[in-house]
Amino acid sequence: MARPQDQQAPLVITTGEPAGIGPELVLMLAAKQPSDWVAIGDPQLLNHRARQLGLDIELVCVAPGERLPEPRIGRLAVWPVALHVDCHPGRIDPANGRYVLELLDLAVAACLDGRASAMVTAPLHKGAIREAGYNDFIGHTEYLRDTCAVEEVVMMLATDSALHGQADGRQQALRVALATTHLPLKDVAAAIEPHSLERVLRILAADLQRWFGVESPRIAVCGLNPHAGEGGHLGREEIEIIIPVLERLRGEGMRLDGPLPSDTLFTPRHLEGVDAVLAMYHDQGLPVLKYAGFGRAANITLGLPLIRTSVDHGTALDLAGTGQADPSSLGVALALAADMVRSR
Amino acid sequence: MARPQDQQAPLVITTGEPAGIGPELVLMLAAKQPSDWVAIGDPQLLNHRARQLGLDIELVCVAPGERLPEPRIGRLAVWPVALHVDCHPGRIDPANGRYVLELLDLAVAACLDGRASAMVTAPLHKGAIREAGYNDFIGHTEYLRDTCAVEEVVMMLATDSALHGQADGRQQALRVALATTHLPLKDVAAAIEPHSLERVLRILAADLQRWFGVESPRIAVCGLNPHAGEGGHLGREEIEIIIPVLERLRGEGMRLDGPLPSDTLFTPRHLEGVDAVLAMYHDQGLPVLKYAGFGRAANITLGLPLIRTSVDHGTALDLAGTGQADPSSLGVALALAADMVRSR
Repeated sequence: MARPQDQQAPLVITTGEPAGIGPELVLMLAAKQPSDWVAIGDPQLLNHRARQLGLDIELVCVAPGERLPEPRIGRLAVWPVALHVDCHPGRIDPANGRYVLELLDLAVAACLDGRASAMVTAPLHKGAIREAGYNDFIGHTEYLRDTCAVEEVVMMLATDSALHGQADGRQQALRVALATTHLPLKDVAAAIEPHSLERVLRILAADLQRWFGVESPRIAVCGLNPHAGEGGHLGREEIEIIIPVLERLRGEGMRLDGPLPSDTLFTPRHLEGVDAVLAMYHDQGLPVLKYAGFGRAANITLGLPLIRTSVDHGTALDLAGTGQADPSSLGVALALAADMVRSR
Repeated sequence: MARPQDQQAPLVITTGEPAGIGPELVLMLAAKQPSDWVAIGDPQLLNHRARQLGLDIELVCVAPGERLPEPRIGRLAVWPVALHVDCHPGRIDPANGRYVLELLDLAVAACLDGRASAMVTAPLHKGAIREAGYNDFIGHTEYLRDTCAVEEVVMMLATDSALHGQADGRQQALRVALATTHLPLKDVAAAIEPHSLERVLRILAADLQRWFGVESPRIAVCGLNPHAGEGGHLGREEIEIIIPVLERLRGEGMRLDGPLPSDTLFTPRHLEGVDAVLAMYHDQGLPVLKYAGFGRAANITLGLPLIRTSVDHGTALDLAGTGQADPSSLGVALALAADMVRSR
């Protein structure tokens, strides 16, 4: 089906670390279904990787903002960005660290000026980028936060909508956002403070409205401590920090459940009707999400002036070039981004 | 079918807090299936609660060690222990706090001298027992540990065996043991220390052999920090404490995976062939377990000289006497205890 001239800008996928599985995941998707999205990456790399995997893919290079070719199985539109040096699957070369950031910079610029509707990121390799001289590089999320000049972003993982059954038979995505992300466990309790918690909840509620079409989001909030502190017997952060923040925001009309014990919250009765769960830290929320939706979950960065989703796995250097990698998380990330574009 | 004289001792269920749902859960089980187990509690309380719920149950009081009546639907054998004061569903009375402990004392004594094969505990109410003058009462598990005079016990939750599918089509229980239990989150990191971690792993491995018929248990161990510390970038406890303990125990022949990121570990590929998961703390392991097995999970105390399982819920005072409580967790606790008796 031809794209009308006035059709909205396409989704873009940054193909990520060239020695990892990112390039081939994009090719595998294009081999399975007509793709109305664009890959950002080196066309020669993609060509070479396609041949290695025995995939018959027609690459069509287009300039950002140009009309895409007609979507067809086996055809992939590419916004070309050249590798700095040749790349061998599984072998990281810091000389291509800058290349990975160039993919991101192009995607961000295109999302901000309207040439792209959303960006989906294949995995990058932090080490490769640090070794390329970006010593304080932390990850995609922080890079996008700084590039977009926002103060705080929120990490949320979501399963696709077919996964999570409800009592009334409807299916609903399971979404888990994090109040803190990549901190040593010993530092988590001190990082739960009112200002930041409030900001995270505001971003989460605003983006559920903005990008998920949820008019009045209902958010279930985990306690920090086991049994949500059991009335202060197992920790006082619920009483001193979390409950006052929730009370204040409820006073503004936000719909917030909790703080609830996390092992109670993740059960059908408490999840019913909930649009997102806020876990206080990484390992409180993500094991359930990954257990429930492995291979059917994707990462979403909230708080940015653009839509960004991501796979929930790494570069899998050991699988690169073998054809054994599984593109389903990239497929979910793409589907989620498309849903968000439609809902906004 | 009559019980032969030489049949092994029965399982006992302590009916727990009399104002809670414990007594009626036991009655509901007896109304559904012939029961070859014994309830420990006040016969008048049970009679009264059965009438309240409209259950037609024949109570048969027997002395501990005496032969049980023939199992039959609607018949319940009781080892009688008298309430101290009358009890109303939903209304806690500290005057019965001592009664709840008497149920436990009788069950422990019977398990230790062979009149009972295992004990299953319905929920108690900590507050009621503390208010009865036992100010330092923490919970069932600690009371049993002290009554049995052992130094350390390990809390493990398990789903029934029908739940957790494996790649080869076999079904396997999901079992999650905890290295630390009811601690404020801020105190967890400091509580992970080599001596205790080693002891927990030894108890877990020994009891998987002793009571679950697993000849050479394979245990998957979570890291403490997100991404299991990511090589020290997100915390050093894996490098300094957990890995050395695992290495030492592997040297003795124990089969230990990890430390693994908990959001990687709880996925089919890593759970396959694993007999139990060791989580470092409560909210790292139990949300997945409860999500996977809500209403089909039970609590097991390892490290005791007896078999003890328990429901995975509380006294639900608001439901007591209404008939709306769900006896499935008690049923799973009973089935698990019976499995453990058979396997030992």
